[in-house]
Amino acid sequence: MHVSDDSPLVRNGKTIVLAHDHGLEHGPKQFDGVEARLDPNAVFEMATHDAVTALAVGKGLTETYYPSYDDEVNLLAKLNGGSDLWMGEPYAAQNWSVDYAAELGADAVGYTVYPGVNDEPRLFEDFGPVQERARDHDLPIAMWSYPRGQAIKEHRSRDAIAYAARIGLELGGDFVKVKYPRSPGAMAHAVDAAGDTGVLLSGGSKTSDREFLELVEGCLDAGVSGLAVGRNVWQREDPYDILDKLERVVFEGASADDVL
Amino acid sequence: MHVSDDSPLVRNGKTIVLAHDHGLEHGPKQFDGVEARLDPNAVFEMATHDAVTALAVGKGLTETYYPSYDDEVNLLAKLNGGSDLWMGEPYAAQNWSVDYAAELGADAVGYTVYPGVNDEPRLFEDFGPVQERARDHDLPIAMWSYPRGQAIKEHRSRDAIAYAARIGLELGGDFVKVKYPRSPGAMAHAVDAAGDTGVLLSGGSKTSDREFLELVEGCLDAGVSGLAVGRNVWQREDPYDILDKLERVVFEGASADDVL
Amino acid sequence: MHVSDDSPLVRNGKTIVLAHDHGLEHGPKQFDGVEARLDPNAVFEMATHDAVTALAVGKGLTETYYPSYDDEVNLLAKLNGGSDLWMGEPYAAQNWSVDYAAELGADAVGYTVYPGVNDEPRLFEDFGPVQERARDHDLPIAMWSYPRGQAIKEHRSRDAIAYAARIGLELGGDFVKVKYPRSPGAMAHAVDAAGDTGVLLSGGSKTSDREFLELVEGCLDAGVSGLAVGRNVWQREDPYDILDKLERVVFEGASADDVL
Amino acid sequence: MHVSDDSPLVRNGKTIVLAHDHGLEHGPKQFDGVEARLDPNAVFEMATHDAVTALAVGKGLTETYYPSYDDEVNLLAKLNGGSDLWMGEPYAAQNWSVDYAAELGADAVGYTVYPGVNDEPRLFEDFGPVQERARDHDLPIAMWSYPRGQAIKEHRSRDAIAYAARIGLELGGDFVKVKYPRSPGAMAHAVDAAGDTGVLLSGGSKTSDREFLELVEGCLDAGVSGLAVGRNVWQREDPYDILDKLERVVFEGASADDVL
Amino acid sequence: MHVSDDSPLVRNGKTIVLAHDHGLEHGPKQFDGVEARLDPNAVFEMATHDAVTALAVGKGLTETYYPSYDDEVNLLAKLNGGSDLWMGEPYAAQNWSVDYAAELGADAVGYTVYPGVNDEPRLFEDFGPVQERARDHDLPIAMWSYPRGQAIKEHRSRDAIAYAARIGLELGGDFVKVKYPRSPGAMAHAVDAAGDTGVLLSGGSKTSDREFLELVEGCLDAGVSGLAVGRNVWQREDPYDILDKLERVVFEGASADDVL
Repeated sequence: MHVSDDSPLVRNGKTIVLAHDHGLEHGPKQFDGVEARLDPNAVFEMATHDAVTALAVGKGLTETYYPSYDDEVNLLAKLNGGSDLWMGEPYAAQNWSVDYAAELGADAVGYTVYPGVNDEPRLFEDFGPVQERARDHDLPIAMWSYPRGQAIKEHRSRDAIAYAARIGLELGGDFVKVKYPRSPGAMAHAVDAAGDTGVLLSGGSKTSDREFLELVEGCLDAGVSGLAVGRNVWQREDPYDILDKLERVVFEGASADDVL
Repeated sequence: MHVSDDSPLVRNGKTIVLAHDHGLEHGPKQFDGVEARLDPNAVFEMATHDAVTALAVGKGLTETYYPSYDDEVNLLAKLNGGSDLWMGEPYAAQNWSVDYAAELGADAVGYTVYPGVNDEPRLFEDFGPVQERARDHDLPIAMWSYPRGQAIKEHRSRDAIAYAARIGLELGGDFVKVKYPRSPGAMAHAVDAAGDTGVLLSGGSKTSDREFLELVEGCLDAGVSGLAVGRNVWQREDPYDILDKLERVVFEGASADDVL
Repeated sequence: MHVSDDSPLVRNGKTIVLAHDHGLEHGPKQFDGVEARLDPNAVFEMATHDAVTALAVGKGLTETYYPSYDDEVNLLAKLNGGSDLWMGEPYAAQNWSVDYAAELGADAVGYTVYPGVNDEPRLFEDFGPVQERARDHDLPIAMWSYPRGQAIKEHRSRDAIAYAARIGLELGGDFVKVKYPRSPGAMAHAVDAAGDTGVLLSGGSKTSDREFLELVEGCLDAGVSGLAVGRNVWQREDPYDILDKLERVVFEGASADDVL
Repeated sequence: MHVSDDSPLVRNGKTIVLAHDHGLEHGPKQFDGVEARLDPNAVFEMATHDAVTALAVGKGLTETYYPSYDDEVNLLAKLNGGSDLWMGEPYAAQNWSVDYAAELGADAVGYTVYPGVNDEPRLFEDFGPVQERARDHDLPIAMWSYPRGQAIKEHRSRDAIAYAARIGLELGGDFVKVKYPRSPGAMAHAVDAAGDTGVLLSGGSKTSDREFLELVEGCLDAGVSGLAVGRNVWQREDPYDILDKLERVVFEGASADDVL
Repeated sequence: MHVSDDSPLVRNGKTIVLAHDHGLEHGPKQFDGVEARLDPNAVFEMATHDAVTALAVGKGLTETYYPSYDDEVNLLAKLNGGSDLWMGEPYAAQNWSVDYAAELGADAVGYTVYPGVNDEPRLFEDFGPVQERARDHDLPIAMWSYPRGQAIKEHRSRDAIAYAARIGLELGGDFVKVKYPRSPGAMAHAVDAAGDTGVLLSGGSKTSDREFLELVEGCLDAGVSGLAVGRNVWQREDPYDILDKLERVVFEGASADDVL
């Protein structure tokens, strides 16, 4: 489904999701060196920056902190996930219903699937009614699509990421968040495979400003609809500086060189 | 159940389903050489050809592209499936409800079962309420019936395909889509086994025009109600040419020789 | 529960169920030599014989063929089953709801359980609500009760069949269909064990007229309420002849010798 | 929860449950030597004895025979169970809903759990809503609490039986039926552990009159609220004689010596 | 979510939960030496002490004893749990619904999760709707958060406990009960990680007055919102004495030295 340009998640046809589910997915050790960001207020505050069109957080952070920010921040409710203490194949358990996300003011919902894992059928079966309930609430849905499992020799290969993107389209995602497939050409192929479903670059672990912004620029040239960024923002000493730069690159057409 | 001749899926007593669930089932690498067809519009456009009595696609493609084609294309909503990244025994997870398919304008629904796999009971248990819900909406249901599992030494044997066809009848399919059992006589046996349930030949992977059309002609002589074709149409350089020929063979009684 | 003598399934206090779920349970190879019976009309036609007090078939056959026979045939809706391609322990997946069976005009429902298999708990848990829903619709329920699994050294032993029959009573079956426990005395013990639940002899694979009718006569003497017969009728060259004979033996008190 | 003294299950503050689920749990071979008791009427008749404050039977026996006895017999609906053909760890599958038990006139419900087995979580999860539904119908609930599994070295040890009794209290049973822990002192400890939940001695396999009645007397002295007895009644040649004696010991304070 | 200071569970901004689920979780052997406490009245009585802002007990104790104490005791309904006879990985089966807890007068609910176990997904999936149903009833929810499983080398490490606390926040707990991570500094880190979710120190097994009170004092200094204490109260010879001391330390700012 094509998300209209007047969606709250879209600005000039592009989207930047600030993702902050790391407390659940990876735990407090992710905050080493940036301990102040353990306080979710710090990250909600970042989400008020004009560069951020939506903040992706879970139920607990939403209940606790979103009431203070709902005028300034668009909420992408991340409905499933798990801890990295778990040693099974990647899986993401739903802990938040679409109905309650809507009640808390969500502007969109997000759901992780891992195509290829032994529990792929269960993940697809879970995704189905979530996607349809989101439609009932007129909420766009973003799929985090990460191929894993025995058949995946290289989970960032051109084919794997294009397949990940296509699954986002096939199962009814408005957006599909994928890892970077190692080249702009491969990303362009994933964008083609996704059809009218918007591809969001998954920001990944923290890199230098130049490396990160050139990646973003290359992916925009490849046709992505934006990015979902977390650690590359909130793990930085000055997150507002990188948000300023992202805003210029993503929404105003500046190059990485322009802003560096 | 016998589908009446005035069903939108039937023309002159025959049916051609254009199947396009390959993006989910096999991924974008299926489109190598025909990259333009990664854009689902290209395949929806093909489905407007008079030879096509229904287009079989999943939820995401339907939501995104069907609104532009609903006047010209009959929709067969494919409700379950999975990626070929998955290494388990064949399985097809339901990701789309009958209710939502009906809401999106489906003219029929489709569901895959794999008789003989370890999860056969779960697939039959899932098929039951889907079939009954389809009845509530007066939607014909087509079963994709593919025997697999430990007991299946040759999944295209005469016995296996006849059993597949019979299961379509026994569980309440209006149509049952089966692979070609290697001879017209074996297909005629499958048609007998299916009773009043219409047997659709599964088109399979791309072959030459002659090979494909002779196969179709032979199966029609054996009594099938039509075919479900995918790669043999949209992987071709000129899909409209093969659709023209199929139209003559299936609906107008021409022989393969006539149209080649 | 005692089925009253004015039940449509009972004639002179006895019942003959013509069972025809072999297409699902065993597949078309069961019809080798009697290919014309692949057409379910042939078997529905047999069910119009006065000897048959109910026809046991699945959902698909009912939807397709029963509308032409509902005035002449009482329907026993067989709600669960599976293919013999499946290599797991015996199991029978429900593919038909009681509600829909009632809607299609069922006069009774049937359900298979396999006491002793690893999935016995699941089968008993599934049987419970089916049985109770049948009560809501005032439909008698027949249990196909076949002990299997690690503990069953001889599944037709006196003890195993008596246990099978008792489980029919304990879980709330009006009828319980069991295999022949190798002697009339053992069958009489099973009848005792079943209390007021009617025991139906499972007809089994095709035998000679004499062998079959003497078996029936012996079981009637042992107190069974009737039989459920399939292959011993529809696999015969002349099914109407054996039905004539069964009618005399079961409903009119003739001996096997009388009718042969 | 404390069962009030004017409950139909209580007479002079004590309870005798006649349990008759052996047909399901152990099969007809339990009736060797007392074949007449295969007819459930025989046991329902025993339950009309004044010594019996409730008869514990399953759904099928209730449907079939209880209508003739509902004026004279209080019904304890045994909702779950399984055959001893099953070779898995002890488990008891629910085959009867609380709602239907209430509809059939149950005065109380009963449910088996096996603390310690691998499926303990599933048993506790199943017990929860059953217990709450019983509350909705104002029906007392008795837990059959039998510790089993890898950790149980001696399932009748003082600790195991006290734990079994406590679980009855903790999960909301009005009564908890436990095996005899080999000494009156251990039984007194179980009674303490159960708090206000009434402990019922599980009668076990048939013993001599003296052995059985002395056991009962000892347990009453230890504080039990009564007993649940089956084989020690209906496997006896003269069940009414032992019921007469039980009545005097349990309700009238006689000693075993007094009545022998 | 921040629990407001006028919540019944909070006094001067702090909380002391008296936990008494040991009968289910560990069994009557926990009461060796304090046998009188096997009578739940003894512990309910302790809960009337002003030091106790809530009593955490299961369904059965609540039904049986809470009616006599509901004016004086705030109830924290512990909804899930299991016996220690079970040899699987830690798990806690839900046996009490939120609705019924509310009906019985609960002031809050409690739920155990074990991040990192093989069944983590199931526990998170179960927690989700429980948490949302608690919101419907305006009941605060406390998560017992205990990391376990293959990845947990040291389940009381600084990182493990901080992660446990964070999961309480991320999944929507108002309180999160964690074990002591071996130093006040580590506990302060857990408090930071939990954001506005209140951290409750898990009291653990019985220690000396000094050891226990110094632990409490240290944790209060580290920022915890209170504690959940069980054995350190009810296993003591004089539980009221330790409650007096806890009251001074937790609510009145006294030091351990002050009160010893």
